[in-house]
Amino acid sequence: MQVDLNSDMGESFGPWTMGDDRALLDVVTSANIACGFHAGDPDVMARTMRQAADKGVGIGAHPGFHDLQGFGRRRINLSAEELGNMVAYQLGAAQGIARSLGTQVRHLKLHGALSNMATDDPAIARACYQAALRVDPQIIIVALAGTRMEAVARELGATVAAEIFADRAYEDDASLVDRSKPGAVLHDPAQAAGRMIAMLRDGAIHTLGGKRIPCRIDTICVHGDTAEAVAMATALRRDLEQGGIAVRRFG
Amino acid sequence: MQVDLNSDMGESFGPWTMGDDRALLDVVTSANIACGFHAGDPDVMARTMRQAADKGVGIGAHPGFHDLQGFGRRRINLSAEELGNMVAYQLGAAQGIARSLGTQVRHLKLHGALSNMATDDPAIARACYQAALRVDPQIIIVALAGTRMEAVARELGATVAAEIFADRAYEDDASLVDRSKPGAVLHDPAQAAGRMIAMLRDGAIHTLGGKRIPCRIDTICVHGDTAEAVAMATALRRDLEQGGIAVRRFG
Amino acid sequence: MQVDLNSDMGESFGPWTMGDDRALLDVVTSANIACGFHAGDPDVMARTMRQAADKGVGIGAHPGFHDLQGFGRRRINLSAEELGNMVAYQLGAAQGIARSLGTQVRHLKLHGALSNMATDDPAIARACYQAALRVDPQIIIVALAGTRMEAVARELGATVAAEIFADRAYEDDASLVDRSKPGAVLHDPAQAAGRMIAMLRDGAIHTLGGKRIPCRIDTICVHGDTAEAVAMATALRRDLEQGGIAVRRFG
Amino acid sequence: MQVDLNSDMGESFGPWTMGDDRALLDVVTSANIACGFHAGDPDVMARTMRQAADKGVGIGAHPGFHDLQGFGRRRINLSAEELGNMVAYQLGAAQGIARSLGTQVRHLKLHGALSNMATDDPAIARACYQAALRVDPQIIIVALAGTRMEAVARELGATVAAEIFADRAYEDDASLVDRSKPGAVLHDPAQAAGRMIAMLRDGAIHTLGGKRIPCRIDTICVHGDTAEAVAMATALRRDLEQGGIAVRRFG
Repeated sequence: MQVDLNSDMGESFGPWTMGDDRALLDVVTSANIACGFHAGDPDVMARTMRQAADKGVGIGAHPGFHDLQGFGRRRINLSAEELGNMVAYQLGAAQGIARSLGTQVRHLKLHGALSNMATDDPAIARACYQAALRVDPQIIIVALAGTRMEAVARELGATVAAEIFADRAYEDDASLVDRSKPGAVLHDPAQAAGRMIAMLRDGAIHTLGGKRIPCRIDTICVHGDTAEAVAMATALRRDLEQGGIAVRRFG
Repeated sequence: MQVDLNSDMGESFGPWTMGDDRALLDVVTSANIACGFHAGDPDVMARTMRQAADKGVGIGAHPGFHDLQGFGRRRINLSAEELGNMVAYQLGAAQGIARSLGTQVRHLKLHGALSNMATDDPAIARACYQAALRVDPQIIIVALAGTRMEAVARELGATVAAEIFADRAYEDDASLVDRSKPGAVLHDPAQAAGRMIAMLRDGAIHTLGGKRIPCRIDTICVHGDTAEAVAMATALRRDLEQGGIAVRRFG
Repeated sequence: MQVDLNSDMGESFGPWTMGDDRALLDVVTSANIACGFHAGDPDVMARTMRQAADKGVGIGAHPGFHDLQGFGRRRINLSAEELGNMVAYQLGAAQGIARSLGTQVRHLKLHGALSNMATDDPAIARACYQAALRVDPQIIIVALAGTRMEAVARELGATVAAEIFADRAYEDDASLVDRSKPGAVLHDPAQAAGRMIAMLRDGAIHTLGGKRIPCRIDTICVHGDTAEAVAMATALRRDLEQGGIAVRRFG
Repeated sequence: MQVDLNSDMGESFGPWTMGDDRALLDVVTSANIACGFHAGDPDVMARTMRQAADKGVGIGAHPGFHDLQGFGRRRINLSAEELGNMVAYQLGAAQGIARSLGTQVRHLKLHGALSNMATDDPAIARACYQAALRVDPQIIIVALAGTRMEAVARELGATVAAEIFADRAYEDDASLVDRSKPGAVLHDPAQAAGRMIAMLRDGAIHTLGGKRIPCRIDTICVHGDTAEAVAMATALRRDLEQGGIAVRRFG
């Protein structure tokens, strides 16, 4: 049994630092790298990709809305064509930086509000993923396991890496429990690891309500925005490996 | 005998229109398309590239400084590494849009202050061109004929399209006569065409001082920012063809 | 009887021109000047304000969302506090430019999606207008006549200039008929002028359904983004004056 | 004897935090607050100004070039008119936020490359200060003690707060020793404090070469971008007060 660990990265911008990417790159196997629209700039992208490549971590494009102040977390209504152009531009830019370093972009994961909107509305997921696949038919789409977003990616013929969250509880429809509800976020690494191992062995999401939703699980999303987050990711990886789950890049 | 005609294009942004790209695409054979930093946005890029592809016009990336208000015409000092990342990002973004439309980017030409700085300083040209060639070793570099900028591109092993200007007079060192000087800019299409034909037949730049600088000439730069500019480009093309010069894409 | 004519202006940005502000400033009596977030930059603002001041046209701040590509026409959800800061910043910036020219900002009108959201939701109107009034208690708020937006401005104790549209038909609830419906937009200046004169004489909005909604009318909004728009505004002004309505700045 | 302590602040942006403004506001008496062009956004500005006002710290506008990625540290050539508009816009925006909070902007200090250029070229200082004084004739200009920048501000009739740096050595012409030279930057708070007290008592800058340059000294610039910087500022303030220098806001 094996699983990938992915995390958002390259979210610094100009003079501002976010997260400890260097530390996190020792823990995860796939890095979702911001593409300059909600975070990241060409220099941050190059630095992060070089570090990822040096450590054998898979490089992914992490496109979001063009909104630095809002960090891509504010919803903006765009047409399908505009969404496609926005994703093609950012994926292409990430490929440009990667090629200039002699490496390549393997996967794509939508960021923030764009991801939320694509989860809610399959037409938005389709617009984004179609554009990405036209840019690179081999690109691996990271999508939330068991959702319509994943279904859309599969319908388009994409290679999909289905993702679950290490620290978030699930509703019975495979959506995440809203952060405002009790039990929505797990803070104990041992508990998170135990839950992940159980889900991987079952091949199913375990919901807060006690339901099991069978699904493919390829990667676990962890966070790195705080020192605690990096420590939690590190503990999770150790526990997974001690539990007999190999941690390896997907694909 | 043959020559390419190139023009800057895709310089609209959001609600603002610049130039009549549709008309100009009937005249030129290569389009230098802004990449979102000094002009252009993903939607403008996609629209312009689609029109260019439909008309068989070669698509080029036209990277510049990240300065919309200044239209990339203000010099900004960046390190060689920052310049390379900036060019790799924009070339990649242009490739992303092009691929999403089923077409491709064939050439690269630097814009505005970035081009001026690269003409003045070979280290800047080298940083930009090296990055572009790492992104795509087949990319054709459009460089000013007879300049160190062209020499740098050749040293790097690039395929080069050497460029002269239809409407600008030349100094004896192959640089352009400063716009503030008398005779710097030609306004008569017939005169411009006659001069172009003479230079192409001679294989040399004719300077204002009467000198001939032998050089390769692959493409002529024309403008499209006003109705007069489009009319001048149209007249130039007609006169070239009547003078026995075939107008065809380089490469 | 008298009325003010207002129009959006200063919507150029850097190298891009929008509208013929110089021509329009001969027609209108109040100018709503973009503040750099959805259009306009400090130089465009200064140029437009100087021309307005020279022609005795009242200067207004026209704040919008920070979204150049979308021209402030895309809705972005912000908290009341964020809305207030966004409006205070832009109004202050407009005052700064105005003072540097020896003139002043007299009124404020919300732009695009921000205006639409403030029309739909009184809490949004309140957040914006409260901030503006804290920056300048004397500021005149331009609000859609007969709407909750106008009511909010009055509740806050503001001096209000109630606005109707020269070229738009009204629903029975004083909202504008959606542009997609037949009859939503008037294209004939004489018809528009006749309708304006009738509404001013009645002190009421005339709806497409034939209803009369009594309300105060201080200013008529006209457009200047095309040559036809300027011609229509010019014809409207002439017809108003021939119909015995004096065209004068509000306040 | 008394002196003011000033520091750059409000340099966070959107999701990114820079410096510990809250801690620094307990140490300094004047805060130079970024105005959204090189750092800061309307929400960061409001939060920082509210905290400064609550602690009785004087609020200043800290305008810079419109270059977030470069943090206003890259030189951009603008005309005198463009510089003036850029400063008037940012000072006005800062005033707008301040007024919306019931407080006010007392001083102005140029940031980064704009400050360096204004130090090198009196015409640039004049363009910036003239615009600021037209926006608010009472604004206090913070200028480097003993420089032409200070002279320009005085020629314009401004109230000036002349500034020295706590941690930087001086050349014999009152300019700062380049950071690359040995001894350019002081790291020991006690040494820095001793030097400040000596300069204040002498009413003169002490240069690295042993020269004394008589000048007025109103304020000392300290940094707050790291925990060490805040500790150094705290130690400096304590040592100044123990040395008999009252620490109070200028003006």
